[in-house]
Amino acid sequence: MSSAKQGGPVRPSTSVWRPLGADEVKVTGGLWRQKQRLNADAILVHCEEWMERIGWIANFDRAAAGTMGGDHSGIEFVDSEVYKLLEAMAWELGREHSGALANRFHALAERVAAAQEADGYLHTSFGRPGQPPRYSSLESGHELYCFGHLFQAAVARMRTGHDDILPQVACRLADHVYEQFGPGGRIGVCGHPEVEMALAELARATGEQRYLELAVLFIERRGTGTLGTHPFGQEYFQDDIPVGRAETMRGHAVRALYLASGALDVATETGDEGLCAAVREQWANAVARRTYITGGVGSHHQDEAFGEDFELPPDRAYAETCAGIASVMLSWRLLLATGEDKYADLIERTLLNNVLASPRADGRAFYYANTLHQRVPGLVPSEHQLSHRAESGLRAPWFEVSCCPTNVARTLASVGLYFATASDDGIQLHQYGDYQVATALPAGGVTLHVSGEYPDGGTVEVTVIEAPAEEITLRLRVPAWAVGTAVVTETPTTRAPGHIEIRRVFRAGDSLRVTFPAEARVVYPDPRIDATRGTFAVEQGPLVLVLESVDLPAGWSVNEITAEPDSIITNDAGATIEVHRHLVAPAPWPYSPRPAGQEAERARARLIPYHRWANRGPATMRTWIPLTSRAAPAGQMAGH
Amino acid sequence: MSSAKQGGPVRPSTSVWRPLGADEVKVTGGLWRQKQRLNADAILVHCEEWMERIGWIANFDRAAAGTMGGDHSGIEFVDSEVYKLLEAMAWELGREHSGALANRFHALAERVAAAQEADGYLHTSFGRPGQPPRYSSLESGHELYCFGHLFQAAVARMRTGHDDILPQVACRLADHVYEQFGPGGRIGVCGHPEVEMALAELARATGEQRYLELAVLFIERRGTGTLGTHPFGQEYFQDDIPVGRAETMRGHAVRALYLASGALDVATETGDEGLCAAVREQWANAVARRTYITGGVGSHHQDEAFGEDFELPPDRAYAETCAGIASVMLSWRLLLATGEDKYADLIERTLLNNVLASPRADGRAFYYANTLHQRVPGLVPSEHQLSHRAESGLRAPWFEVSCCPTNVARTLASVGLYFATASDDGIQLHQYGDYQVATALPAGGVTLHVSGEYPDGGTVEVTVIEAPAEEITLRLRVPAWAVGTAVVTETPTTRAPGHIEIRRVFRAGDSLRVTFPAEARVVYPDPRIDATRGTFAVEQGPLVLVLESVDLPAGWSVNEITAEPDSIITNDAGATIEVHRHLVAPAPWPYSPRPAGQEAERARARLIPYHRWANRGPATMRTWIPLTSRAAPAGQMAGH
Repeated sequence: MSSAKQGGPVRPSTSVWRPLGADEVKVTGGLWRQKQRLNADAILVHCEEWMERIGWIANFDRAAAGTMGGDHSGIEFVDSEVYKLLEAMAWELGREHSGALANRFHALAERVAAAQEADGYLHTSFGRPGQPPRYSSLESGHELYCFGHLFQAAVARMRTGHDDILPQVACRLADHVYEQFGPGGRIGVCGHPEVEMALAELARATGEQRYLELAVLFIERRGTGTLGTHPFGQEYFQDDIPVGRAETMRGHAVRALYLASGALDVATETGDEGLCAAVREQWANAVARRTYITGGVGSHHQDEAFGEDFELPPDRAYAETCAGIASVMLSWRLLLATGEDKYADLIERTLLNNVLASPRADGRAFYYANTLHQRVPGLVPSEHQLSHRAESGLRAPWFEVSCCPTNVARTLASVGLYFATASDDGIQLHQYGDYQVATALPAGGVTLHVSGEYPDGGTVEVTVIEAPAEEITLRLRVPAWAVGTAVVTETPTTRAPGHIEIRRVFRAGDSLRVTFPAEARVVYPDPRIDATRGTFAVEQGPLVLVLESVDLPAGWSVNEITAEPDSIITNDAGATIEVHRHLVAPAPWPYSPRPAGQEAERARARLIPYHRWANRGPATMRTWIPLTSRAAPAGQMAGH
Repeated sequence: MSSAKQGGPVRPSTSVWRPLGADEVKVTGGLWRQKQRLNADAILVHCEEWMERIGWIANFDRAAAGTMGGDHSGIEFVDSEVYKLLEAMAWELGREHSGALANRFHALAERVAAAQEADGYLHTSFGRPGQPPRYSSLESGHELYCFGHLFQAAVARMRTGHDDILPQVACRLADHVYEQFGPGGRIGVCGHPEVEMALAELARATGEQRYLELAVLFIERRGTGTLGTHPFGQEYFQDDIPVGRAETMRGHAVRALYLASGALDVATETGDEGLCAAVREQWANAVARRTYITGGVGSHHQDEAFGEDFELPPDRAYAETCAGIASVMLSWRLLLATGEDKYADLIERTLLNNVLASPRADGRAFYYANTLHQRVPGLVPSEHQLSHRAESGLRAPWFEVSCCPTNVARTLASVGLYFATASDDGIQLHQYGDYQVATALPAGGVTLHVSGEYPDGGTVEVTVIEAPAEEITLRLRVPAWAVGTAVVTETPTTRAPGHIEIRRVFRAGDSLRVTFPAEARVVYPDPRIDATRGTFAVEQGPLVLVLESVDLPAGWSVNEITAEPDSIITNDAGATIEVHRHLVAPAPWPYSPRPAGQEAERARARLIPYHRWANRGPATMRTWIPLTSRAAPAGQMAGH
């Protein structure tokens, strides 16, 4: 298993770019270092304390002791939260060893292991007297989904250099699943995809090909109608058509993206180019028509689903944190598989906007859904009670379905592993920030330090600490918004729309700097997004900026303002915009032959990064700002 | 009980206008006659056959036989559908007697009665071995909700001149509820309001004041926290604050409107002017800020809730049929209580657009949710399977929660009773169509015939068939859209914004005609409704018109078109508009610094009444049409 200690969460047997491991990339400063510290110091503790307090961890103790009956704590898939916490701890230990955290990790892993049954099965919600039988509800039971999260935790443990109890438990469980669902076994799939990519990765980490074989079977069976009827329709869990035949992402967003990730893993390992192309097309169509500007996906609250093309109301955005994370997982696989920069672009957008918006500044509360327009100041949720997943206006400490906090935790702990890759030829820098890359190329060892103001400023500096004596290629992504405007301190060997490459012999002490435009800039929506017609958004670097009411004059709401793009001013303190407040005359009915215009008041307001909003108390917020020039009464327009 | 045969579904002990009974108003022709025939010939049969086939009626037989256990058919509140069907049948029998229907009614009422227990309790889902105990889940059990629908069916029976088995069953049940929840009993309310208005009406119909006392208690208790926690928050079932303290409609739309109806009934009977004023204010604020142009309410699918002020996305409109019906029930109470025309305006809008959109032209399928923008052609639901309530793109024959079809049935059967009222002074005509009014005024008997092309044309004719020898006042509502443009064939005694009054001695054979403008007209939304910015809608008379893709050139979708209001042409065949089709160049990301414009193709398309859409197969549809003049690329606007 020594070869396991390579690569992060994903390590395809073949790829254009080679992923780096926890010993090869270290985040050293800046925004991401701050968020990784927040994760280590606050989020991991928060998750563990909550799950201890409400009995989700004790479910394993009771299962082990044989005292679990019909009184399981929490909904039936809370095992998965414990596994995601274990995965987060494993990556965190790989990032920066801590004896205290190692002890907590081991204790938790032992409690999980103790609940494993003799035949390898491990789930606290099924199979005991007073509980539903094993595999009695593949549609909604989430058994295999939970197993998948355990496998991913085990892979994290292996990839950070440990072959201990968690990998052993995972393999025994995977062997059991193979026996149950493998060739000659049950013809079924899990209502919530997840186990597919987890099995593929467990196969990659252990070399056990039966696990891959099982992943292939689960992908092949999906869409063949093995699942019972779902009230939201079979596309809810993607059992309507085989994944290779779908043209876009559809149904429940997290399920769709986890499934596509698993399908791509299977396609990569089996060389199924048709399946790989199908996933690429689904990604492209969903990105072009079903994605919010924050990278968030899903406009349906009821079924947590993507919604139709261009059905993207900001005020009803669901944009679940887990869906954003799932999108990053898929984009990362596609980036490794194809080498195309657009996947890194979406990873950046989604991480810095959708995903980072979830944790509160203190790491002790989270958004499950990430709206793009908050119409009324949110209620402050209780710090001591479970919240419903998406109805609160402010971040909540824990949820009845609490998939997002632990998903944020594992993502933050491993986020640096998405920053850079290697090839036989050199190093590729996909994300910017403050971090160090150190890996071995065929030509020799290379160590680079990446730094700069990014994402809050536009400068990226790369310093060579160690390099081979031969030529290597250093490739830096140029984000789509900076194409044509990025300035480099030396002439690139290659300049393509999505990247620059510098091929030469590098020496220790060499440095180069890339400057991206730092000005806030205006973005207009596709006219087919009905809900944002006549508005614009503001971006600065990779960040989506928003207006929050705490930055408006007292008593103003974001619901009554308009602005013009040419009033945006960017300086060292950030971006501001002149907003116009229109007070609409009270009317008994909101539809009229000639809407009354009214003189507007003016004020200059700060624009803040979307991911920082709602950290200063209840407030209204909007991402899409109505154009003042189009807010004139229609009845007064030229020609009418 | 002879006095019971007066008034329709609502008969306050005191009101500005006196409601008329089934023997006083008869719909004789036109659109409403056609819909009442559809109801009698198709909808009632359809509802009965479905509930027979899937065992919802047989639940009563099994309850009576003592063979009901944990195997109850359907969700726990399907009793209410049987009661709404009974109410519909009762009103239909009052409208036009049919021996066959009377037999079906009696047979069904007997089956219900047989299930009543010795102490008066009557519910097929609670209290038997294998079932939850009685009143064990006031939050979600809907027991009192079901009772309320039984009471309303009994009132319909009494108001149509019968004191037979259904009123007797209802009174026994109401006596039981009084004993359980009355003074000294359980301090509880039902999670779904409905029993409040039903008890008030049962008190009015029977004279039994304990029923009113109970209604008062249920209204007073609501909002005091007697219900357990709801995942969507306590406002979901309006238990957050007392109804008299709320400023607008909030939470689950049907619950909010049924509760407000009950509150108004209680306020009327107890003379609570503060409560009455609070309900009027809630109505006004909800109409001004939380109502779709169709009169539909509710923009949340997940919790079937009103949503925030101006949160009215057309493509995610829920606008549940039952919420529209509940809105009519509340507006009717407010019209009787205050005499104000605006309530009749909203009744007209809601009935003709939101409610009438529900039944398919053949009466054998229904919309539960009534979207204002269908982005993709809807799936054709199975004619033989239960549908989920709101996920189908086309009308479905029956639903797991099937509240809407039977609610449509009882509304159509009694719709004429909302058309006109009387006072000591004369007659008020609130709605138009073809119908006859015959009632006794203090001055003597009066019989009027109302006819005309309304709602498809603008002419209303009133012919006097019988009138007293003294002066009386004939009051005709002038819809808000016709204020200042209505033409009357004689000079009114009074002309106010919402009505005209003619006071004189009328003679048999006299007639007068009111002509409202027949041209299609343009309506603009309040700018705070973000989802409709830069669009307009078209109305003609009381009807909202829409574009349906079957009226566009082959291959065009409503999603890609714009238009200008000045291109609307109205002629005898209806209204048409010139639409411009814009094909947006494919782009990998839907947000860009400068959206590309493109030359548009043009075509002339028909506009059809909203309520008729989706009767010609799967299609896309939109109510709000983007303005061509505002669809120009923002980057090409003056000043940029």
